[in-house]
Amino acid sequence: NQTFELDNNPHTRLNILTGEWVLVSPHRTKRPWQGKVEDITPDNRPEYDPKCYLCPGNGRADGDSNPSYTDSFVFNNDFAALLEDTPAGEMNEDDLLVANNQRGLCRVISFSPKHNLTLPEMSVEAITAVVNVWQQEFNSLAGNEWIKYIQIFENKGEIMGCSNPHPHGQIWSLGDVPMEIAKETDRQKTYYAIHRRSLLADYLKLEQKKNERIIFENDHFAVLVPFWAVWPYETMIISKRHVGSIKLFSAAEKKSLAEAIKILTTKYDNLFETSFPYSAGMHQAPVNLGDYPEWHWHMHFYPPLLRSASVKKFMVGYEMLANPQRDITPEFAANRLKEMSTIHYKTSKA
Amino acid sequence: NQTFELDNNPHTRLNILTGEWVLVSPHRTKRPWQGKVEDITPDNRPEYDPKCYLCPGNGRADGDSNPSYTDSFVFNNDFAALLEDTPAGEMNEDDLLVANNQRGLCRVISFSPKHNLTLPEMSVEAITAVVNVWQQEFNSLAGNEWIKYIQIFENKGEIMGCSNPHPHGQIWSLGDVPMEIAKETDRQKTYYAIHRRSLLADYLKLEQKKNERIIFENDHFAVLVPFWAVWPYETMIISKRHVGSIKLFSAAEKKSLAEAIKILTTKYDNLFETSFPYSAGMHQAPVNLGDYPEWHWHMHFYPPLLRSASVKKFMVGYEMLANPQRDITPEFAANRLKEMSTIHYKTSKA
Ligand SMILES: O=P(O)(O)O[C@H]1O[C@H](CO)[C@@H](O)[C@H](O)[C@H]1O
Ligand SMILES: O=P(O)(O)O[C@H]1O[C@H](CO)[C@@H](O)[C@H](O)[C@H]1O
Repeated sequence: NQTFELDNNPHTRLNILTGEWVLVSPHRTKRPWQGKVEDITPDNRPEYDPKCYLCPGNGRADGDSNPSYTDSFVFNNDFAALLEDTPAGEMNEDDLLVANNQRGLCRVISFSPKHNLTLPEMSVEAITAVVNVWQQEFNSLAGNEWIKYIQIFENKGEIMGCSNPHPHGQIWSLGDVPMEIAKETDRQKTYYAIHRRSLLADYLKLEQKKNERIIFENDHFAVLVPFWAVWPYETMIISKRHVGSIKLFSAAEKKSLAEAIKILTTKYDNLFETSFPYSAGMHQAPVNLGDYPEWHWHMHFYPPLLRSASVKKFMVGYEMLANPQRDITPEFAANRLKEMSTIHYKTSKA
Repeated sequence: NQTFELDNNPHTRLNILTGEWVLVSPHRTKRPWQGKVEDITPDNRPEYDPKCYLCPGNGRADGDSNPSYTDSFVFNNDFAALLEDTPAGEMNEDDLLVANNQRGLCRVISFSPKHNLTLPEMSVEAITAVVNVWQQEFNSLAGNEWIKYIQIFENKGEIMGCSNPHPHGQIWSLGDVPMEIAKETDRQKTYYAIHRRSLLADYLKLEQKKNERIIFENDHFAVLVPFWAVWPYETMIISKRHVGSIKLFSAAEKKSLAEAIKILTTKYDNLFETSFPYSAGMHQAPVNLGDYPEWHWHMHFYPPLLRSASVKKFMVGYEMLANPQRDITPEFAANRLKEMSTIHYKTSKA
């Protein structure tokens, strides 16, 4: 009789932050790939692109011009999915057709005046400046009583729907708590009520003991592949201090976070020697809704690539209709990322 | 003071089947698209491809050869994500690292011996033969006491991760109830406990009264864009009779379903004059777990295209980290699909 092994047998794993499960099929990487291979557009962007709406001095869709900024630059999205000026309203017919208005604000943040950079190619100092802006924006948005949640994120790469290669991120804030945050709040609250400790702090302690999924740590952050990762090379940055949001980060923590982001994204780029696409974003406590002692700041990275720079994982079919599924194990992914150099492949080749 | 309007103001809508919300941004389609444009690979497949592992007579990865079949043909996936021969086992460390074994079976079903067809290009009779096979497979899989859920689905198109253009679908069955089905079971059960009626039957009645999202109906099925659709042209086929699974479909219902699939997929192809990609699949009651009087058979279509044959909706960034978001309204999508001819654009051009 065989014994059950996580690195050999199909199994499900629990996401302790959301209560959701992922199906892991460790044996499935043997499948030959006959499907879609993405184009790799050669990346020879100029430092300044006169047609880019994020480059310094250029015009934008709303008629404004960007200042000739030197670090980062923040403005309201000209094609925002959420608008501040949304009238109140709701609809409910027999609990079958149910809708609510949604008020919000979408900000865009250019990470650098240089059109041809990406986070791993920026210095720790320059990334620290971005982290500072994230914190400032968070604090000033939270100053609006009606805002209940602030989502800071980055879509990187064409394959992730990023419509402009200029290094930039977004901040969507809104008058409600979005679903992913509601789920994570529930689970953290329940754990905290029982243990009086942070769920993620306890999880991190266990991961440190096991040392199977941790990629690296610095003074204030740990970077790991979560046990329940869905995307092939999904990772999470967890703050070592139990704080609910970026608001509370000290100068030392902000620099450590910048360093962690630089190392992680460099390892990502080195994995397939490509500018590694992902959606990444911070999860933090809601604002203007009282205290959330259970909330523990963290940042998710969801990258789509599976086998190479041009073959991604498709979250389709069974995944959309039934349950997310992954092929390589989180432990395999963590090992691969651990092995990767912290020197960017472009630099080491130059 | 403005009044709140679903077709003008950002809002959220409730998915009554899952309890989840979607953010709708009706004003956002004005956004110019500067992002990724998909390749459209010209489709000039031969009727028979000697290298295709689904064509009649050809060899497969496991060493077997396909018979020279004339309708459809079913076999076990040579690179299955789920395996029947999975040892029992589980893991739980402090409720932080939680995993369970997952036993299952993955079947592949070729819809036609002809390599160059797709469902909309097949006759109603030929699609009825596929529906018959779905029913037979469902019944025979359900004959295994350990199988608890049977997911019948199709991934169509390279953009949906389909690794072989030969018309085919898949059936994954497993010893557990996957998450999407668990959510839909909960919501239907709760509604049924209160009203003693099927949630989807009541919903369909209300949609028929409103007539804003119904695309078409035939004797036994209605096809509509659900009020809470996430994907731009997402649709749902709902059976008019309240039955829990395909097992109970009569010959007349099976023919009606084939007809509904032919019309819907033809309209899809006509929308952007392309072979319209999607993931589609039936949702039905679990098996071998007792009675599910609340369960109401339906089939979801999740297509990614948004603006044209080459510009899709990216479910990334905010969507992955916070909440799904859509640009065009479900009502707009329903109207567009309603307008589309039921004659396939290739035929009408021939
Ligand atoms: O089984 P296929 O067609 O090779 O693979 C496709 O469908 C599967 C089931 O939806 C997914 O898990 C894969 O990511 C996708 O590429
Ligand atoms: O805002 P962008 O970069 O134009 O658009 C991108 O990010 C948004 C937020 O994640 C998504 O809603 C869009 O689908 C995606 O294309």
